Amino acid sequence: MKTHPTTRTRVRRIPTNASYETATLHAIIDEAYVCHIGFTDDSGPHCIPTACWREGGHLYIHGSNGSRMLKRLAEDECCVTITHIDGLVMARSAFNHSMNYRSAMIYGRFEVVPDDAKRSAMEAFMEQLLPGRQAQVRAGSDKEYAATTVMRISLEEAACKVRAGGPQDDAEDMAIATWVGVLPLQRVRAAPIPATEAETPAHIQQWQARAD
Amino acid sequence: MKTHPTTRTRVRRIPTNASYETATLHAIIDEAYVCHIGFTDDSGPHCIPTACWREGGHLYIHGSNGSRMLKRLAEDECCVTITHIDGLVMARSAFNHSMNYRSAMIYGRFEVVPDDAKRSAMEAFMEQLLPGRQAQVRAGSDKEYAATTVMRISLEEAACKVRAGGPQDDAEDMAIATWVGVLPLQRVRAAPIPATEAETPAHIQQWQARAD
Repeated sequence: MKTHPTTRTRVRRIPTNASYETATLHAIIDEAYVCHIGFTDDSGPHCIPTACWREGGHLYIHGSNGSRMLKRLAEDECCVTITHIDGLVMARSAFNHSMNYRSAMIYGRFEVVPDDAKRSAMEAFMEQLLPGRQAQVRAGSDKEYAATTVMRISLEEAACKVRAGGPQDDAEDMAIATWVGVLPLQRVRAAPIPATEAETPAHIQQWQARAD
Repeated sequence: MKTHPTTRTRVRRIPTNASYETATLHAIIDEAYVCHIGFTDDSGPHCIPTACWREGGHLYIHGSNGSRMLKRLAEDECCVTITHIDGLVMARSAFNHSMNYRSAMIYGRFEVVPDDAKRSAMEAFMEQLLPGRQAQVRAGSDKEYAATTVMRISLEEAACKVRAGGPQDDAEDMAIATWVGVLPLQRVRAAPIPATEAETPAHIQQWQARAD
């Protein structure tokens, strides 16, 4: 499945790296813990990081009812961006050095998730962060939910850009004898750091075993 | 050394996590390979990832002369944001779950680096990406430099937000028996992937040895 590029999502800079595949978009979002949101208010442009998750064809965020960003996002268009850096690409010339990455940009307007759908959205968020956690903690109270705004944006107007693999050198540089290839960067889940002496339950043990 | 918070950089949401220390700001930037830039043009707000580096009190970016973003950044204010996610914080209640992170936001306007300063700026970038690499590759040609725009933004109007450590639970939840602590996320430098059969030189061998 593909989305149709719009004026805002048609990739012009290195368009061969562009992807409008829904599967690519979903994979990039599902691997992210945070997105960056570009929006404007009376003081100009802002770019704010916030936790995000996906359900179906929407990206979700949440925050305090008092959040200036959330209030503003309900009123106007924004751009949500997620970027994963996978490595540095070493080429034979300085200017052909590059980075491998997977990025997604979503344009549109957030809508407020109605009160009766907040709980299931936030429980989906927790389940994505750490499967099995939900059942082990005190669930949100009515008061906590009442103080929280959950918002979502459609993934309809979106584009991804992906670079992978080794360097693309110019033909005239191919005789230069230097090391070329990729210096990979990876995000890893390190060993849990307990705050108490409790035994490590199964859902925590799974942290490092999860495939990304 | 500290920067003085402005209307745009005074942290209102969880202000106890705010930092205006220059050392904190520099460390967050120096660990980043990319930043996200929030800016607007005729089609509204954008949030675009791009490679960045620091020299002294400025953050630098570069791109093709044809880049619509770079053209626009010379004309108007923007917001540059860098975010490192360090872990998920597991608390006794769902709503006290959190993330550990270090983020920096810089407000201002980019200026174009003059032609005679481009080469030293780009060489500083390469040296930051991988010390020793510069000497092993073909340097940029006059034509390559002529096609490239380098820009910088002052770090004067900036703020950081940092969360570290274990959960902050409510007093009435402290008796809940569940695992609490931090699930760390780390960025690691994985083993170099050569594109040819050349031997691995010292500057590439150092990739995984570098402290971050």
